[in-house]
Amino acid sequence: MVIDDPAVKAEVEAAFARYEAALVGNDVATLEALFHDDPRTIRYGAGENLYGMDAIRAFRRARAPQGLARTLERAVVTTYGPDLAVAMTLFRRESAPGRIGRQSQTWVRFPDGWKVVAAHVSVIDDPE
Amino acid sequence: MVIDDPAVKAEVEAAFARYEAALVGNDVATLEALFHDDPRTIRYGAGENLYGMDAIRAFRRARAPQGLARTLERAVVTTYGPDLAVAMTLFRRESAPGRIGRQSQTWVRFPDGWKVVAAHVSVIDDPE
Repeated sequence: MVIDDPAVKAEVEAAFARYEAALVGNDVATLEALFHDDPRTIRYGAGENLYGMDAIRAFRRARAPQGLARTLERAVVTTYGPDLAVAMTLFRRESAPGRIGRQSQTWVRFPDGWKVVAAHVSVIDDPE
Repeated sequence: MVIDDPAVKAEVEAAFARYEAALVGNDVATLEALFHDDPRTIRYGAGENLYGMDAIRAFRRARAPQGLARTLERAVVTTYGPDLAVAMTLFRRESAPGRIGRQSQTWVRFPDGWKVVAAHVSVIDDPE
């Protein structure tokens, strides 16, 4: 299995960047399109545990569109073979000094493109 | 791509169960063996951000072996094709009433077996 094939990595990095832009811009349609539309898709959010795309959609559509701006740190996309990738990043928000967020996503290539099948977001006191 | 092929799912569920037993038993050798030994392996823990297997190993070896017992809830393994799986679970500890943990892992099949390439653990106030 080839890890970090440059062509595959570039594809996922583009999808990851598209997701990030949609997140800070609260572009809900794009956020939803980048998740695998399936009951098996799971997202553990900063304060909620969402099993299935219906739950994820309901959460996103109800979300307040303020305060989403953030700065990423140590973002890494790693690809395993042609169809799987993991995207891990830390993030900070000006509204939360001394705290650091972590976002992990598992991406899978489907016939209609790369999609997140599992995600986890959490915020902790900055250990550094 | 076949999602949740029964034979693949059974393999990963066995690896997941082995990991859980090693975690609550503080069997550090098994925990390390079940992670991909690579600088690209990343683990966001409950209070630390570990980039690379060297950092993960150092953390585990220094960890206090007390208070690891926990009860899993809504554990789900989902496989995508023959070589990739996501394992997501909630967990509770008696020492932390009103709090709920979340653990997400991405597993990849390597020549020497299934390994975690990315993990994320966090604990939040129980939203339910």
